[in-house]
Formats: sequence, structure tokens, C-alpha cells
Amino acid sequence: MRVKKIVLAAAITMVAAVTLAGCGKKSSSSSSVTTTGSTSGNYQGVIENGRYKTSKARGVNTAQNANVYNLKAFESGLINVSKLVFSTKSYIFQEGQYLSSSTLDNWLGRKTSSNPTGLNPAKGKSSDPNPEYIQQIEEQDYMQQSGNSLKLKGIVIGIGVNSEYTYQKTTDGPNYTKNISNAEVQKQGKLAAAKILKRLRARKDLKNVPIVIALFKQASDDSLVGGNFFAYSKNNGSTISSWKTLNYKAVVLPKASDSTSSNSSDQSDNSNFTNFKTQIQSFFPNLSGVTAQAQYYNNSLSGMNITVTTQFYSETEIQSFTEYIVQAAKKYLPNGIPIEIKIQSSNSIQAVVYRNSGSSSYQSHIFSSY
Amino acid sequence: MRVKKIVLAAAITMVAAVTLAGCGKKSSSSSSVTTTGSTSGNYQGVIENGRYKTSKARGVNTAQNANVYNLKAFESGLINVSKLVFSTKSYIFQEGQYLSSSTLDNWLGRKTSSNPTGLNPAKGKSSDPNPEYIQQIEEQDYMQQSGNSLKLKGIVIGIGVNSEYTYQKTTDGPNYTKNISNAEVQKQGKLAAAKILKRLRARKDLKNVPIVIALFKQASDDSLVGGNFFAYSKNNGSTISSWKTLNYKAVVLPKASDSTSSNSSDQSDNSNFTNFKTQIQSFFPNLSGVTAQAQYYNNSLSGMNITVTTQFYSETEIQSFTEYIVQAAKKYLPNGIPIEIKIQSSNSIQAVVYRNSGSSSYQSHIFSSY
Repeated sequence: MRVKKIVLAAAITMVAAVTLAGCGKKSSSSSSVTTTGSTSGNYQGVIENGRYKTSKARGVNTAQNANVYNLKAFESGLINVSKLVFSTKSYIFQEGQYLSSSTLDNWLGRKTSSNPTGLNPAKGKSSDPNPEYIQQIEEQDYMQQSGNSLKLKGIVIGIGVNSEYTYQKTTDGPNYTKNISNAEVQKQGKLAAAKILKRLRARKDLKNVPIVIALFKQASDDSLVGGNFFAYSKNNGSTISSWKTLNYKAVVLPKASDSTSSNSSDQSDNSNFTNFKTQIQSFFPNLSGVTAQAQYYNNSLSGMNITVTTQFYSETEIQSFTEYIVQAAKKYLPNGIPIEIKIQSSNSIQAVVYRNSGSSSYQSHIFSSY
Repeated sequence: MRVKKIVLAAAITMVAAVTLAGCGKKSSSSSSVTTTGSTSGNYQGVIENGRYKTSKARGVNTAQNANVYNLKAFESGLINVSKLVFSTKSYIFQEGQYLSSSTLDNWLGRKTSSNPTGLNPAKGKSSDPNPEYIQQIEEQDYMQQSGNSLKLKGIVIGIGVNSEYTYQKTTDGPNYTKNISNAEVQKQGKLAAAKILKRLRARKDLKNVPIVIALFKQASDDSLVGGNFFAYSKNNGSTISSWKTLNYKAVVLPKASDSTSSNSSDQSDNSNFTNFKTQIQSFFPNLSGVTAQAQYYNNSLSGMNITVTTQFYSETEIQSFTEYIVQAAKKYLPNGIPIEIKIQSSNSIQAVVYRNSGSSSYQSHIFSSY
């Protein structure tokens, strides 16, 4: 499969009919047109000259996140914000092509005479430094087919704002941590958004394209869940039009018994999960860990990722346990939301049980070896 | 869910209708009856007093296998041999309950005055020791419902025979390795089988039950695939009735370019896989590894496990790459056999694409995080 030109495939009608297995398209009218294909509800990606078109700032955010949960939550979350504005049926996803690694590295730095575009404030006193507020920035491009090429129809920018700042007063001295209030996170995120919008709009090639900016509050470095998006704004001009609130929250289950739940729905989610956990622990000997990440959207549970860790002594144990977990999940876990259950031994994943968004039945796969 | 008695559920008619998602059963006539449920083509497992009934020799084989591929291939392979004799629709699987850890530890040892039941020969000269031939033994029980309890209807014993023997002539001296010929593997496996059959048949509780014995040739410790079953025998008496040949083989793909393929079908399987590998490597930058375990049954490809390892720099890369892999798998990989593709970064699994046995479409799952 050699592809010579810019590429894509709208395949809009196809996508609607696409099932779990995914479905790509190779145009019959032109040999140069391909996409990654798409699974239901996901974007198709862009292939150029036969290769996946990676970001111009590839790897910048990987280096910016000490906590891998923040990286994953930021990127998956940004795609979800994009879906609110750019339908997966009408738009094709392209990794950011307008902001380069060096541009972003500069923006993520402190503002100094040698780095005038830095979005973070100058350091100030070593004994009481100004926090670095802006931790990561990501660009995503949304495209539509136009004749034989792709045309940019929208840009989405995510900005990750720190909720705490760790520093040392002297080189190799002890670490100090400043908490950054929610109000400050909001303020700093919106300040950075205004600057970034102006800078992008000043570019000739981005003069007329809608620019969506979304703000993300980073979780602390030791958190077992990532942060969350809390606001976004869609802009046609060069100043922020208005902010829409996003109400996401991620928590770890089971909750510590002394934790105060904010509402009764949280409590019942926690107790459902605890029942599931108790059930599978009484079934299988010596389970060493059963924990979950639970995500809330507008105060309703919107998804769960469960990890079950134990030592297995045989393949047949893995098979039987996986089948049992499917039953327990059906019985104890909530309906109508995506659920993922990883079943792993200390070294490696052994099986996965999952129910995708929009599906009513669980799938399971036991990892095989010959 | 409290379960008070011995347990099970034949659920025979249900199993036939069961789909991928699995389906358990709780009898309406008795509150004490449960199973692990069953996915299509797999056995249901036994739950006793609400707990999974583990093997009486739990963990023995884990300790016996330096190469984890041997352990997995042995146990999955033994289940496949069992399916040739005991239908998954009519029988319920139970982990071995008749051979204890201490019995098996003795059997797997050398025969000495203090260990008269050892299946391996006395050591002989340190400078030229007799090999330890028998490396692992596993028991599986096959049950049927009888009134309110389960009745044993068959036992399957797997015997793993070494294809090489590593020893030291002096304590802490260098390692020496003796290859064990195929003829010797066959001979030693059959000798051990005859002894084990006699020992089991001498037990009152196993007097009348069919005893299937299957022989497995262990792969070398540094092999990237496990060994394979090469013979089995179903016995109603106390001597081996006759041996049936099993023609399994597992290989690693892609093959080294200088390897001589045994036949043209092997060559075309290798070249199909190489095309798949080339295709995804030209698509995605810097793929660090694309390898496969391929299994053959009666000289036809019967399954593949592919591992793709690379560094990903964003969630969107993982999503796009996974969707592309589904397309490439459809185009380049053979139809009609189970295929598993693990997509992982150096640390952890990121996605899985698979097509189950008997299915014509691929499923994919991208691991999620909040």
C-alpha cells in the first residue's frame, strides 16, 4: 500500500454503520486516499505519504508529566471536549501541526528576557518562588475533506494548570509544596488561554478557523487518578468569547472508610464497588488488590477502570476467574457506562473484561501464549 | 451470594446459546448452585462454598518451569487435549483434587531409597548424570451433575518431558546441557504415563473413571515459545490402551532469513506476517518490535499471538495506531484462526486487538485511564 499524496477519507456514512471491529476506507476514485479507519464514536486519523502524521510537538507533554495519569487524563479528556464541538462523523482528527516542540517549550517556561513568550511568571525570591502554573499544552486539529486534500476546520488547545507547586529553597535542599487554590487555577488558566488565543489568531493560517480552548486542572504528582477539564470556550475572534463549565471528577475506589462523601450517589457507587470487590475476594483466594478509578460527569458516574491484581497458579485459574468476574460485574456494577476490568499478576496482564460506551454486554479476552 | 453446599451447574442448553460475553447460572430450584459461567467453547468451573475450588497441587508447576511459556503452553494445551475427549457442553472443569502437592513433588523427584515413587532416574555419576526427564505433571478433573452434587467422570493427566537437561559437574561449576532426543522424550513420557496410570487406577476412588494421559515436550529454557503436546491416550483399564499422535508445533515469527522452512505453507505464513510487520512499521514511526508466536496443528497455522512494542507519545497516537492495526490485520493476516495482537509500550499494555476462535471479526480495546 503506497500512498503518494495527502490523505484521508471522510467515509461519513460508513462510520455510522461501523461496529466495534473498526472499519477503514480506501477510496475507489483515488489510489492515494486512506485513513486509520474508525471505531464507533472515535475520530479517524490522518495518514500522509503512507505514514501516521505525528504531532509537531511530539513528546513535549510526555516530558512534562511526572504523573502518567495526568498525561492520559489530559489527552483522553481533550478528545472528549473536542467531541462536544466537532462531531466524529463529520471531522477527521489530526495531531497538532501548528505548534512546534520549541514553541511549546518556550511557552511552558518562565517569562524572562531571553524567553519573552513564557506563560509562567518569573521566579522571584528563591525562598518563596512564584509557582509555575502552566504545566502542559496540547494542540489537536480537526479537518474536513476538501476536494483531494484536507482542510483545517478547527483547532482545539488544552491547557494543563497545576494545583500544587513543588520547589526547593536551596539546591538539593528539601522539597516544599505550595497548594494552588481552585480560584487561582481558574484565573491562571484563563489568563494563559487569552494569550494563546491572541498568538494563534495572529497567524495568517489560523485567521478564520474556530479555536477551542479547554482548561485542565492537574492532579498532584502522587495521585492515583489524573486531573480533569473544568472549562472550555469556542472562539471565532481573538478574545475569549465565554467560558462553559465542565464538571468532571475522578476518584479512587474503594474510598477510605473515614472519607466524607459529598453526596449519596457517590456513597452508593462506592458501596456497589465494595460489594463487587468483596464478592470476587471471597471467590478467589489471596487477591492482592482490587481498586478502581471512577469518573464522574455532572455528578453522575460516567465510567470505571478496575484493576484486579493477584498471583495466578495456572491458566485454568485465570480462565475460571475471568468468567466469574463477568458474572460479578453484571450483578454488582452499574449499567449504562463504560467499564474496564484489568486482571493482572504482578508482572503482566492476564485478561481483560470490558463493556464499551453504549454497549450493554461485556466482552472478555484472556491473553494467550503458545 | 452465600453458597453453602457443593456446587455446579450443568446449564448445558444455556452454554450452547452463550456468546462472547459469557453467561453464568444460578439455579432457581436451589440457592446453593452456582458456576463461574462460561464463554463460548470453554468449560465452566466449580465453585464450592462460594469459593473457586483450587487444585490440591496448586503452585507445583509454577515452581517447576523456568520458562513461563512452557507453563502457559502446557496448561492451555492440556485443556485443548481435554476438549478432544470431554465436550465443553457436557462436562464441568474442576482443578485437580486427587494428586496433592507432596505427591507430585515426590513423583517429580529422582527415585531414591527415601523417594521410592520418584519418576526420574537416580543421578548416577556427577560428571555424567542421568537427565531428569519428567518436569511437570498436571491433573484436571471433568465432572457432571448428579442430583445435587458433582460426580467425577474423567481425569486428564498432562506430563511434561524435558528436551534438554542442564547440569553442573561440580557445585558452582559451569553449566553443561544434554539434548534429549525426540525418541527418548517419547520413551520416557510413555514410561512415566504407564506408572502414573497404574498408581491412579489402584486408588479406590479412581477405579472406574476414564483416565486420559497426554505427553508434552518441554521447550528449552531460552525458547520464546513453549513446548507442545505430542501424544495422548484414553484409558479405561490399568495399562495404556494405545497412543494417538498430536501434531502441534509453535514457532516465532518473523523467521531468521537463513532459516530453512519445512514447507511452503510455513513460508507463506512467514511472508504474510512479514508484510503485516512491514506495513505497520512504515505507518508508525520507530516501532521497536513486532514479533509473533505462531501455532501449527497438523501442519496448518492454527493461531497467532503478535506483540507490537513501541514508545507512544500520546493517547491519540495509541488510538490511531490501534485502528490502523485492525485494518492491517484484516488485510494481511490469515482468516479463520484466532489472532491476538498486544500493543504495548515498554512498561505496560496500551491496547489489544483480537479475533476469537470461530469469529470472523476483530475486536479492539484501548486501555483507559482517568
